[in-house]
Amino acid sequence: MTTLATVLQQIDSDTDAATDRLFDLLKIKTISTDPAYASDCISGADWLVAELNDLGIAASRRDTPGHPMVVGHSEKVEGRPHVLFYGHYDVQPVDPLELWHRDPFDPAIENTAEGDVIRARGSADDKGQLMTFVEACRAWITVNGALPVNVTFLFEGEEESGSPSLVPFLQTNKDELSVDLALVCDTGMWDANTPAICTMLRGMLGEEITITAADKDLHSGMYGGPAANPIRILAKILAGLHDDNGRVTLPDFYDGVEPLPSQVKQQWDSLNFNVGDFLGAVDLSVNAGEEGYSALEHLWSRPTCEINGIVSGYTGEGFKTVLPAKASAKISFRLVGNQDPLRIRENFRQYVRDQLPADCSVEFEDHGASPATTMSLANTAFENTRKVLTDEWQHDAVYAGCGGSIPVVGYFSELLGMESLLVGFGLDDDQIHSPNEKYSLHSFHKGIRSWARILDTLASN
Amino acid sequence: MTTLATVLQQIDSDTDAATDRLFDLLKIKTISTDPAYASDCISGADWLVAELNDLGIAASRRDTPGHPMVVGHSEKVEGRPHVLFYGHYDVQPVDPLELWHRDPFDPAIENTAEGDVIRARGSADDKGQLMTFVEACRAWITVNGALPVNVTFLFEGEEESGSPSLVPFLQTNKDELSVDLALVCDTGMWDANTPAICTMLRGMLGEEITITAADKDLHSGMYGGPAANPIRILAKILAGLHDDNGRVTLPDFYDGVEPLPSQVKQQWDSLNFNVGDFLGAVDLSVNAGEEGYSALEHLWSRPTCEINGIVSGYTGEGFKTVLPAKASAKISFRLVGNQDPLRIRENFRQYVRDQLPADCSVEFEDHGASPATTMSLANTAFENTRKVLTDEWQHDAVYAGCGGSIPVVGYFSELLGMESLLVGFGLDDDQIHSPNEKYSLHSFHKGIRSWARILDTLASN
Repeated sequence: MTTLATVLQQIDSDTDAATDRLFDLLKIKTISTDPAYASDCISGADWLVAELNDLGIAASRRDTPGHPMVVGHSEKVEGRPHVLFYGHYDVQPVDPLELWHRDPFDPAIENTAEGDVIRARGSADDKGQLMTFVEACRAWITVNGALPVNVTFLFEGEEESGSPSLVPFLQTNKDELSVDLALVCDTGMWDANTPAICTMLRGMLGEEITITAADKDLHSGMYGGPAANPIRILAKILAGLHDDNGRVTLPDFYDGVEPLPSQVKQQWDSLNFNVGDFLGAVDLSVNAGEEGYSALEHLWSRPTCEINGIVSGYTGEGFKTVLPAKASAKISFRLVGNQDPLRIRENFRQYVRDQLPADCSVEFEDHGASPATTMSLANTAFENTRKVLTDEWQHDAVYAGCGGSIPVVGYFSELLGMESLLVGFGLDDDQIHSPNEKYSLHSFHKGIRSWARILDTLASN
Repeated sequence: MTTLATVLQQIDSDTDAATDRLFDLLKIKTISTDPAYASDCISGADWLVAELNDLGIAASRRDTPGHPMVVGHSEKVEGRPHVLFYGHYDVQPVDPLELWHRDPFDPAIENTAEGDVIRARGSADDKGQLMTFVEACRAWITVNGALPVNVTFLFEGEEESGSPSLVPFLQTNKDELSVDLALVCDTGMWDANTPAICTMLRGMLGEEITITAADKDLHSGMYGGPAANPIRILAKILAGLHDDNGRVTLPDFYDGVEPLPSQVKQQWDSLNFNVGDFLGAVDLSVNAGEEGYSALEHLWSRPTCEINGIVSGYTGEGFKTVLPAKASAKISFRLVGNQDPLRIRENFRQYVRDQLPADCSVEFEDHGASPATTMSLANTAFENTRKVLTDEWQHDAVYAGCGGSIPVVGYFSELLGMESLLVGFGLDDDQIHSPNEKYSLHSFHKGIRSWARILDTLASN
């Protein structure tokens, strides 16, 4: 029996214990965007440090002005490639809590029509995925006494809140963290049977605007008519962001958005993406994207502008005839190609200012900006990984785009000169960022086995 | 000394005790729109029943499917006019609570640059105003053993939440409540020195819309582009309600809105309304109303469409790249002249439906509909009241419009064939419906004296 075969056997026999360990991590309420959970984020980091130390990895919590990082290094073996694995232990908020059918931080295995799933906030994004790699390492170390390649571990606690500490941390620890290749497990499968390597990632720009009209809430009977209504101003601003064809109207917004190369378009077309099934799964049927593009192009290679939250005035039960003083909205742009996030931010802010009446004001809050990333695939690790994923899943692994944004990949490239190999086992219906998030138990198990194989093939890279 | 002079003297000597009684009422949290305060509303009604009974008025709590009414009748004296006094004991919600500088339900006298004020939710709208009438009755009864006219008292507990029980109650108790004239104390002074009788009231239509797109909240990275965003749809709907000149775009919206008669316009012009001061008081400077009309016309004789609340998606600290499933807004229309609220509701709902993508849905919630009212002034009680108000305030009382809506006035006219005399002592800076609501102690005291004089003059009507 080869070492790899023994490692895979070890993984199979250790599945229940691996699930229990993941549950321990899922119970920690690491909601990074809400300051109320700051101490839980520290607990999450400490749990990971202990976990790595237990494997013989020299790991420590590295505090930042925000939530801590965890960094660990396997014992150095000369002559072997050196990879850095990145994952994040923080999670999205859980509201609206009433739509969860169980406590989001009390994980459980549930039997569903699609098989057993792990139900909890963070099960798919990203604790479950992060642990597929850790468990693969555990199996290698258990069987072999060591990992087949040198591994640096980097776990972040601010991925869901704009990663404010990430760039300074990478800059300060550039020498320690710059290795041959980054491995990232925060993406999905093409479908439940088809593994995927993500080679295009959209960038993201997050903005929050708050418009102030009067200096206090007013009675609409006393002031309605002459007094400016900030909700009306905000609605006009938001409505003006798209034209009737769904195209974003900001000046120069599409600068840097290149047409999709024909061979990429061909490959995507060959995936036979079913937009009806994709939208039907969430009870929609009409492709709401910009006219002239397929849904897969919208998701992977076209930029978007979305409103993620809005609030003003009276929003409780019943009615209140208030003219509110303030109205605010959170807006995000998914970016592709060479779109420049900072230039788009400036154009967006100027557009908003241009819409304001003379006596109203606006405040902007910056929620992060990162460009899109496209992998070159020159590194043979990509094709080797595609082969072993195909072996594991008995289904041709594909190169795919990714509608989401993983800013760290851009930073690894820019700041550390390091390309990223993105492999993940999430499914479209995992409901990440939504109530009732889940991770397929099959994904978890075969994800661990997949990383065991990838570590093996990287050793011979 | 005339009886009236003795009554006025009695009021002056009883001011502190009257203030204490008002404080007792202000402490009861009668927020009608929020079901959590239902038992407080019952307590408020019970307090008023006890207060009236204490004056020898036969009063009782009259339960409804919503919050109770209070009805009382003075002992019948033949040959005297019979009036009905209407006020409401419910109040607006208090959020945002953090903007209050004291507990909204812990009333206190505060010394301000404009004199002493009573600070509490409901101090001006409408508990303080309601009690000016009750205290005037108390003084008459104390001095004279009886009121100079027959009085029926009607106190409502649902005015701030669309008065759902009012029409059925008036219909069921039509014989009991139909008298010569209604007196209503829920309006304001022209300025701090000039009393006003309100002869035009805007009507109101309240609507809430909830747009549903996907059947759950989605991740904007996974679905952004092809999936409909209900905030974007809602923003477009709301932005489309006004044209670039501030005119409401709904079909037939202005049907029934007549030009202002020239003599009314002249009288209003003679009031020398200072729009700069009016808007400056709330830190605004630009008249945001429909082009071609003065601010006073906007407030008193032009209809409006206002958005009073909006909420969707993630609205907490930080950022969440969610595509929300639902987005909702509360919208109100102030109506004038002969605008038909029910037709406007239908046209509004059709407009909203017409804007929806095929796979999105909308739910409407009805928050009340009442037409505008214009008094005929044929009843000599109007001019007699103007004279005694002038006597009390030593300043010519004026006939004014009212930007707010007091639907009960329309119902008194339609259902009970009864005209309403609207006299009130609120000031523009009372911050009703806002944090830090107050009522001038001067208004409270001279308001009581004013009603004492009005009761006297009505006796000879």
